[in-house]
Amino acid sequence: MFDPQLRREIAAIVGGRWFLDSPHDLVAYSYDATPLYQAMPDGVAMPDSAEQVAGILRLCQERRVPVVPRGGGSNLSAGTVPVAGGLVLVLTRMNRIREIDSANLTATVEPGVVTADLHAAVEALGLFYPPDPGSMRVSTIGGNVAEGAGGLRGLKYGTTRDYVIGLEAVLPGGERIRTGGKLMKDVAGYDLTRLLVGSEGTLAVITEITVKLLPLPESKRTALALFADLEGAARSVERIIAARIIPATLEFLDNPTARVVEEYARVGLPTDAGAVLLMEQDGPPAVAARDIEAIAAICREEGATQVSVARTEEEGAALLTARRSALAALSRLRPTTILEDVTVPRSQIAAMVRAVAAIAARHGVMICTFGHAGDGNLHPTCLTDARDADEIHRVEQAFDEIFVRAVELGGTITGEHGVGMVKAPYLEWKAGAAGIEVMQGIKRAFDPHSILNPGKIFPGEGRKRVVVQHG
Amino acid sequence: MFDPQLRREIAAIVGGRWFLDSPHDLVAYSYDATPLYQAMPDGVAMPDSAEQVAGILRLCQERRVPVVPRGGGSNLSAGTVPVAGGLVLVLTRMNRIREIDSANLTATVEPGVVTADLHAAVEALGLFYPPDPGSMRVSTIGGNVAEGAGGLRGLKYGTTRDYVIGLEAVLPGGERIRTGGKLMKDVAGYDLTRLLVGSEGTLAVITEITVKLLPLPESKRTALALFADLEGAARSVERIIAARIIPATLEFLDNPTARVVEEYARVGLPTDAGAVLLMEQDGPPAVAARDIEAIAAICREEGATQVSVARTEEEGAALLTARRSALAALSRLRPTTILEDVTVPRSQIAAMVRAVAAIAARHGVMICTFGHAGDGNLHPTCLTDARDADEIHRVEQAFDEIFVRAVELGGTITGEHGVGMVKAPYLEWKAGAAGIEVMQGIKRAFDPHSILNPGKIFPGEGRKRVVVQHG
Repeated sequence: MFDPQLRREIAAIVGGRWFLDSPHDLVAYSYDATPLYQAMPDGVAMPDSAEQVAGILRLCQERRVPVVPRGGGSNLSAGTVPVAGGLVLVLTRMNRIREIDSANLTATVEPGVVTADLHAAVEALGLFYPPDPGSMRVSTIGGNVAEGAGGLRGLKYGTTRDYVIGLEAVLPGGERIRTGGKLMKDVAGYDLTRLLVGSEGTLAVITEITVKLLPLPESKRTALALFADLEGAARSVERIIAARIIPATLEFLDNPTARVVEEYARVGLPTDAGAVLLMEQDGPPAVAARDIEAIAAICREEGATQVSVARTEEEGAALLTARRSALAALSRLRPTTILEDVTVPRSQIAAMVRAVAAIAARHGVMICTFGHAGDGNLHPTCLTDARDADEIHRVEQAFDEIFVRAVELGGTITGEHGVGMVKAPYLEWKAGAAGIEVMQGIKRAFDPHSILNPGKIFPGEGRKRVVVQHG
Repeated sequence: MFDPQLRREIAAIVGGRWFLDSPHDLVAYSYDATPLYQAMPDGVAMPDSAEQVAGILRLCQERRVPVVPRGGGSNLSAGTVPVAGGLVLVLTRMNRIREIDSANLTATVEPGVVTADLHAAVEALGLFYPPDPGSMRVSTIGGNVAEGAGGLRGLKYGTTRDYVIGLEAVLPGGERIRTGGKLMKDVAGYDLTRLLVGSEGTLAVITEITVKLLPLPESKRTALALFADLEGAARSVERIIAARIIPATLEFLDNPTARVVEEYARVGLPTDAGAVLLMEQDGPPAVAARDIEAIAAICREEGATQVSVARTEEEGAALLTARRSALAALSRLRPTTILEDVTVPRSQIAAMVRAVAAIAARHGVMICTFGHAGDGNLHPTCLTDARDADEIHRVEQAFDEIFVRAVELGGTITGEHGVGMVKAPYLEWKAGAAGIEVMQGIKRAFDPHSILNPGKIFPGEGRKRVVVQHG
């Protein structure tokens, strides 16, 4: 509970109805999309402007009250769980698209804009904002920026970090800074723009975002290939790249995932497919068609048992359903679904998928793997039950080994979900002790009193996949 | 002069012949490509490995001796001038291309690799490293990374920062860190990779760089358009983008530049052309041809007095000579050439070019403007004489006004050359006091004793375009 004075002051800034601290409101903001993590905040504020954000941060820094910025709450690393209590700062009211600038190919938006709404708005003008995280219908751009969100188009188009070119952000003391701008080139001092991308709400609260846009691709073609085994799929990916083709998406489902998806979505996947590749190419019609035919031919040569090339964009969208529904399908099987997020160099995908299967078998847990084969970002997804302490312990051990293996293969512990609380204990494996020390120095430079999203990114008292407070 | 003990210790690390401190060696490393700036170092070391770099940094931090990392010395912001003395750390011996990984589309190189050599090596394999700073035949990749170098292909392909995905760097205390990897997606902690890009040798010494590669475009088409006035050129740029065409390069020369280039290179530019646009498109042959024809048609509609579309890549390369020789041509006219580097939103290019002309006229100085119209990055280039103190004073005043105007137009004080010493007094106009304070905190986190490239980026005792020590 806040002291009544602070409560009054914050409510005065945002207006009474935008400050919440009833028990059911606090519960609603005690968790995000990450299973097994929960902690109660002391209050929730919903500011409507950078001025309000600045006023709240000033107050909270004075009183040393933790502030946890939050958008749609679709985070998968417990990044918005208020583990140290304090104030959850919900930015979803700041959801205006301020400008779409066709001459400069930029959009300037508030952090609470839902990602898919930005897609729709720019696409209506023939423009394109490529990052498409799986959560895009609920996640906000502010959250995407804070997490450095990826998506299905990472291989060809990169991720959120490749599109953010300007930010307004409020520092913990309430000062506002502006970084970058509508500028394709800017090297005036350290690149604070890209440093804030992926900083997980621990350095500043982002209040305005300028992204660069591309022309909307003229057309899109889709193909689906089924393989008897993983190796054929892996060789196909390798040969597609070797043919100097960069598909817009190049998605992978393993056999357990394909089976579950078919049961759920009835898209016509044979349940004995060892591996499924879903591939899209976009661009001028002749180029997209040429590439998708070349891709299909490679898959056939590498032993695909079935290759379907969609004749229309609608048919293509239907094929993509298989991939887009993977998480929903998997999450029906067991009470708890833990979606993980390792990335390896593309050439190590088959090795990583095999390692996940072997590790899951060894620990007697069920892990399905799907993900972005094109950019090496895989989502080993564990279907488990949070109420079974013994099984959860084995799940933890399995994921420990998966992260070790990813790093051994030249990969990373998180490709697009962020460190948050879930990966904090593992960060040192990727960043090293000296790297973490530098990051902690950066944290102090922005947030000397450590009020912004404490308990995230850095390994602290919390260890491994611990249930902080189970609702 | 170093004390003899330190001198011996550094020489023991690199081997005697790779430590230099004769007067003529010190003079050779007292300046870079920036006119008017010079300062003598106390010694020059040429390490051959990250181990040697670490050993030297450890020694220098203990003794609080400044270390200035340096590649080809083509810096244009006095970024490698050893203004506080100390050691110049020349990384050109570390010039091995360690790996070109076709499966993962990456190259891993030492910092001393000359940019054009990397281009040649990857292009021989059908791959493409897009960043092409004007200095690419002398500049090193390490320098490109330290400066966040741009180039002619920024509009379509981005700059160095968009290609660096992994680094090894040595911190001032001698610890080595690794960031990123052969990974298209990695959000494990703060993005130290992009923070080091553009950090101008002030945070760490980069000892290995992994860049992502693209497939080499299949073909390239070039067009040249001459306009009676600036407005027609500006409208053409606007309409090309509005037609959702993103050319690979979209370069601009103003009338004074075109006149001088013609005198020098005899490429057939009429000396009365008010503005010249040079445009390239790459991609599959049909697409490149379609786009270049559309571009040519737009230029004609907007009143171009002459539009030439090259029929072959060789003809295209000849057209590009006009742009590539601009700096060389201009530098013949007067003893001192000051190449500046502002960027504005693309829609403000005409306003910026007009402002430069008006400001130059008002101060009675000669400034030619050329640059990257596609990405808004302009190089107002002053032809002057460093020996004429009165004229240099007027040049300084003119550039002051140019930087003010760029920032007013939503632009920045440096698009691709870096802050160094030249722009340090102006950084606050772009970054703000709070932004600079955060940057200084970052500097302290990496380099608590401020031994790495002191006197750069941050406004300090030095003011404006001061000749530190004239050789």
